[in-house]
Amino acid sequence: MTTEKNLPPIAITMGDPSGIGGEILLKAAASGEYAGTLPNLFAIDDPNRLQSLARDLELDLVIQPIDNPAMARSPSGRHLPVLPLTDPVVATPGEPTGDNASAVIESIELATRLCSRGEVSAVVTNPIHKGVLFEAGFRYPGHTEFLAHLTGIDTPPVMMVAGPSLRVVPVTIHQGLAEALNTLSTEKIVETGRIAAEGLIKGFGLSTPRLAIAGLNPHAGEGGAMGREEIDIISPAIEQLAALGLSVSGPVPPDALFTPGSRPTYDAAICMYHDQALIPVKSLDFDQGVNVTLGLPIVRTSPDHGTAFDIAGKGIADPSSLIAAIRMAGHMATHWRKAAFGANT
Amino acid sequence: MTTEKNLPPIAITMGDPSGIGGEILLKAAASGEYAGTLPNLFAIDDPNRLQSLARDLELDLVIQPIDNPAMARSPSGRHLPVLPLTDPVVATPGEPTGDNASAVIESIELATRLCSRGEVSAVVTNPIHKGVLFEAGFRYPGHTEFLAHLTGIDTPPVMMVAGPSLRVVPVTIHQGLAEALNTLSTEKIVETGRIAAEGLIKGFGLSTPRLAIAGLNPHAGEGGAMGREEIDIISPAIEQLAALGLSVSGPVPPDALFTPGSRPTYDAAICMYHDQALIPVKSLDFDQGVNVTLGLPIVRTSPDHGTAFDIAGKGIADPSSLIAAIRMAGHMATHWRKAAFGANT
Repeated sequence: MTTEKNLPPIAITMGDPSGIGGEILLKAAASGEYAGTLPNLFAIDDPNRLQSLARDLELDLVIQPIDNPAMARSPSGRHLPVLPLTDPVVATPGEPTGDNASAVIESIELATRLCSRGEVSAVVTNPIHKGVLFEAGFRYPGHTEFLAHLTGIDTPPVMMVAGPSLRVVPVTIHQGLAEALNTLSTEKIVETGRIAAEGLIKGFGLSTPRLAIAGLNPHAGEGGAMGREEIDIISPAIEQLAALGLSVSGPVPPDALFTPGSRPTYDAAICMYHDQALIPVKSLDFDQGVNVTLGLPIVRTSPDHGTAFDIAGKGIADPSSLIAAIRMAGHMATHWRKAAFGANT
Repeated sequence: MTTEKNLPPIAITMGDPSGIGGEILLKAAASGEYAGTLPNLFAIDDPNRLQSLARDLELDLVIQPIDNPAMARSPSGRHLPVLPLTDPVVATPGEPTGDNASAVIESIELATRLCSRGEVSAVVTNPIHKGVLFEAGFRYPGHTEFLAHLTGIDTPPVMMVAGPSLRVVPVTIHQGLAEALNTLSTEKIVETGRIAAEGLIKGFGLSTPRLAIAGLNPHAGEGGAMGREEIDIISPAIEQLAALGLSVSGPVPPDALFTPGSRPTYDAAICMYHDQALIPVKSLDFDQGVNVTLGLPIVRTSPDHGTAFDIAGKGIADPSSLIAAIRMAGHMATHWRKAAFGANT
């Protein structure tokens, strides 16, 4: 499908300025790969810092400070519009400092506020480092929880990783595996499946998204012979999701869920734990995976990697995942708008 | 590498005659895909049953009864040598019966005995169904344990699944995930790693096999923040394996272990549970995965699927995994022989 060029622009946040965010942003802008296929876009950052970084990277890119999102023009591969932060940002690659925490947070807050007001159509976030922000007094477990707070959402959002080969949604995420098993519940699976289906409808334009629910145990437990979670927790969740009118299948044996024959049979795999979701998508779509947050009132994507302090400033960071995140944000924003118009008529 | 045509032949067992074993055997033989690249091979089965099945499948294949393995000649794509079982086998596709249990077991016993005596160079086993054999008095948890018994092995053998993209070795296998976590131990990881390395040397001709040891938790636990198994169980195992002189790395974050960039850095991934191993190999190498048993005094491979009673007799079974298992048995037998000669000189 094509995206609408007359959508409000996409905002890209700064992320931790000591990480690879600036470098992949500039490389993505200079590549011009998405020109013509996307809404306009702009970064929320320090224009001088980015212009200097572009020189260091020998990129022929002019940073254009703008006063508001409406001034953003589609990237030609030679220009990048930047909405300036309040203060200049001084950062050393690979050496994060709490001194930049307020600028990191300002970029996220501003992007979210503009998106909530409809002045931008999607937010793409560059990676932050929680440890650095914690030290500076940041009170949220992560990026996503902060966005939920900013947009006034009570239900925890849902993480989807989407690549060309498949979309996966983990029910439990950043917990040790034993703890994840202990906290897995029918309620969590139903809530995750419901939000994932809603996100696929609003953000991906699917009228009847097909959810495949993974089992937890080898061979999905073989009728209780190898674990009872499928019987006690997962199957009841599938029944409840079906009762909501959703198209849902499973529990699918985990190792059968991601085969070439199985992947086309569903729109998203609902996975019981972090690596059940992340192993297949990173095996198949390594640098094309995009992190999508579902359950927010705004469109938000991010590259599926971290700040990568170890390679920051070396000029070797790969912009593929950010480019994929920007493209996906554009596609999602287009569907999102159609869904909103549909709801109004 | 090329295999030696002057090796003793490969023996293929019957498996459950109500499953797809016969069909995929005949299709594999008729394909002639391995002709010229392998030692001779033969099946241990009922020749009349196979000839009748070949007719049903409209395969232009002559079944040649033989008296002993030395009479086996390389398959031309038109002939299949078969060493007869004691009694005729009567089987209905999709309807397994305990009446055939003794023939199923005889085929495995004979193949193993011939291999132990050096009259065949490798055993490829067609799928059996444990439930049917249990009812007939079979006393072993599975195929592999039976082979260990027949060859006089006390240490549990190790399962490797090998495909074109990667080799994986699960430390725990057919247990519920929670139980697998409870039984995971440093000792088990060391034993599995040791046997895997030995198998890669003897069966795959690697002088210094590189083992990558997976973590258990998301991001390999992030220094204990998301689970302590990496610190308490896995890292000590890595130290012990390194102390044995093995090339070993890890604990690797599970979702980083199977990316295109990571896969070339090791010869086998030692995985903590069934699906951590099976999800990536089935995502990447679905119908090319071969099940290899390491830690036996003989070469044994099998296709990475079951009896498939649901599609037996319909003519739609895919012989790809059996063909891959036969090819791998041939390659392994060649290396195995060199390793044996090396040990004797």
